[in-house]
Amino acid sequence: MILLTPGPTPVPDSVRRRLGDPVLHHRTEEFRGVFSGLQEGLRSVFRTRGPVLVMASSGTGAMESAVANLLSPGDSACVHSAGVFGERFARILRAYGLSPSVVEEEWGRAADPSRLRRALRSNPKTKAVFLQHTETSTGVLNDVRALAAAVREESDALVVVDSISGLAGSELETDAWGLDVVLAASQKGLMAPPGLAYAAVSERAWKAASRARLPRFYLDWGRMLESLGDLQTPFTPAVSLLCAQAEALDLIAREGLERVWRRTAELAAFTRAELRRLGLEIFPSEPADVLTAFRLPEGTDSAALLEGLRREDGVCIAGGQGRLAGRIARIAHMGHIRKSDVSAGLKALSRRLA
Amino acid sequence: MILLTPGPTPVPDSVRRRLGDPVLHHRTEEFRGVFSGLQEGLRSVFRTRGPVLVMASSGTGAMESAVANLLSPGDSACVHSAGVFGERFARILRAYGLSPSVVEEEWGRAADPSRLRRALRSNPKTKAVFLQHTETSTGVLNDVRALAAAVREESDALVVVDSISGLAGSELETDAWGLDVVLAASQKGLMAPPGLAYAAVSERAWKAASRARLPRFYLDWGRMLESLGDLQTPFTPAVSLLCAQAEALDLIAREGLERVWRRTAELAAFTRAELRRLGLEIFPSEPADVLTAFRLPEGTDSAALLEGLRREDGVCIAGGQGRLAGRIARIAHMGHIRKSDVSAGLKALSRRLA
Repeated sequence: MILLTPGPTPVPDSVRRRLGDPVLHHRTEEFRGVFSGLQEGLRSVFRTRGPVLVMASSGTGAMESAVANLLSPGDSACVHSAGVFGERFARILRAYGLSPSVVEEEWGRAADPSRLRRALRSNPKTKAVFLQHTETSTGVLNDVRALAAAVREESDALVVVDSISGLAGSELETDAWGLDVVLAASQKGLMAPPGLAYAAVSERAWKAASRARLPRFYLDWGRMLESLGDLQTPFTPAVSLLCAQAEALDLIAREGLERVWRRTAELAAFTRAELRRLGLEIFPSEPADVLTAFRLPEGTDSAALLEGLRREDGVCIAGGQGRLAGRIARIAHMGHIRKSDVSAGLKALSRRLA
Repeated sequence: MILLTPGPTPVPDSVRRRLGDPVLHHRTEEFRGVFSGLQEGLRSVFRTRGPVLVMASSGTGAMESAVANLLSPGDSACVHSAGVFGERFARILRAYGLSPSVVEEEWGRAADPSRLRRALRSNPKTKAVFLQHTETSTGVLNDVRALAAAVREESDALVVVDSISGLAGSELETDAWGLDVVLAASQKGLMAPPGLAYAAVSERAWKAASRARLPRFYLDWGRMLESLGDLQTPFTPAVSLLCAQAEALDLIAREGLERVWRRTAELAAFTRAELRRLGLEIFPSEPADVLTAFRLPEGTDSAALLEGLRREDGVCIAGGQGRLAGRIARIAHMGHIRKSDVSAGLKALSRRLA
């Protein structure tokens, strides 16, 4: 099966081999060695000198951890929403009893820094702004650097970036761009199986977390930071996944992160060109390099198309989510996905659309 | 390395092979087939006809999910605490702003149903009682059947049982004993790597969950139940771990759960007899079959002992946790741990203590 879905993505052979190694106990020097390498690898892909917290959860757990660790009852928060994952931040905030101001953008369009500025001016007490780096449901790339700069000019709000599908595929600089919290997960550009999530946390965000009063225990950052000093996690870590992730990070380090960004950008350009050659329209205004969303031709039975591709051609691509269900399809080209995989997927797609 | 720790425990070869298989996408028939088998296997080890929820988290995530899904601000709750994991329930409840009544028992002693009755009589509004089946930090077995019966006679409180280290090692009947919620995790008797947690939820508990107002999103049971109908999880599942767990449950089904219980009990009896032969005292009053905690001889340097065992003998056993650190050691004999492993571990221990 050729996996061209935006998570889980294919996992390199050496990562799968580490996954199948005998389980090791976490209270050992051997584990601390793995965890130390993992920390180094994570700091390097997040481009941060700070700690990167590790959770046994999906990416949504990391998103919730940012809400629960940064805010208190009654706090003002702002969400930029132009897709399923922007909506998810808003839903998490509401689940915790908060009433976020939501800057809604048309799905497929990139976030507009000036609209964010206006929202912050009308809510000067905003404690945190929640953004997507790449919105997986629409394939759009947001200019996180410009958005973070806009937030900083207007307010003291913390900038929280969901880079779950973006990290290690699309350029992102946690420290240099002044991002307070960056979230990621194992199963996208990080080339490991799903089940781990990460949060890079700035000093400003740590200060906020020490005062924040929303309830949390399993996802409590303070406990994670405390354990990190001893190269441990507060609760039993998902050791097999951590070993696999450490290996995947080694592969990224060996290739070089900038080279991974370039390779991903080249594959994205190739994919977009091929789709246009097939007469298909790229969906987002600012397409991300990690995945390409494109409109399905009018009248396409999207479920039948995707099922045919999967069952008969052995190619797994993703359909639309939420209000885009049935209208778009998405091809990922992040992480371990190779040009030959994308080519084979596009050929099968072209045959079926013909 | 011979792993004799109460989680993670060793993982059978066929489970490791499944773990290292290519990652499969979750929105496929293939995944639904795996997830359907997993559900069947889980219902069979939990001894329930109801759904068993699946979380990508450690066991603590499942413990927190029980608190957040069953209770509302201001609710009364009761915790039986005689070890690290009883304390953990109390800490989670407090993290959510509740003030549980805690029935504290001496560490190493089993829970006393009559003390629980008295606590419920003085707090007749108690909404839920939180118990351990086997308290991993002391190695004690609680008579969950008698405790649940006592709760039922005194009140309408829900009975929540942490069987994270007990399930599939020590007899437990979710439905027949009237347990409302039973929690477990992948890395103990269930013979898979850490990273998955489970909750069996009774109809009474579902009703309570539909009214409960503590905040939750990632750990929300309603979302999990809704997805379960479509053989999915609400957020990206840890597919590799789920495939591994499905294989481990198949192994348990092939051996037969009662036979697993008997094998575990025999191995526990062997371990206790050997430790006594070495002049060591079993720590708990009612030792569980899944692990044996024993007192270290006066003056033992426990850290040096455990490190020597690990580094020089290749045997990994656990020390004491919390107030028992340095005073006891713990040998697990659950899941895939074999008599030859325990024998080798005990021989190495005996040489070092001599």
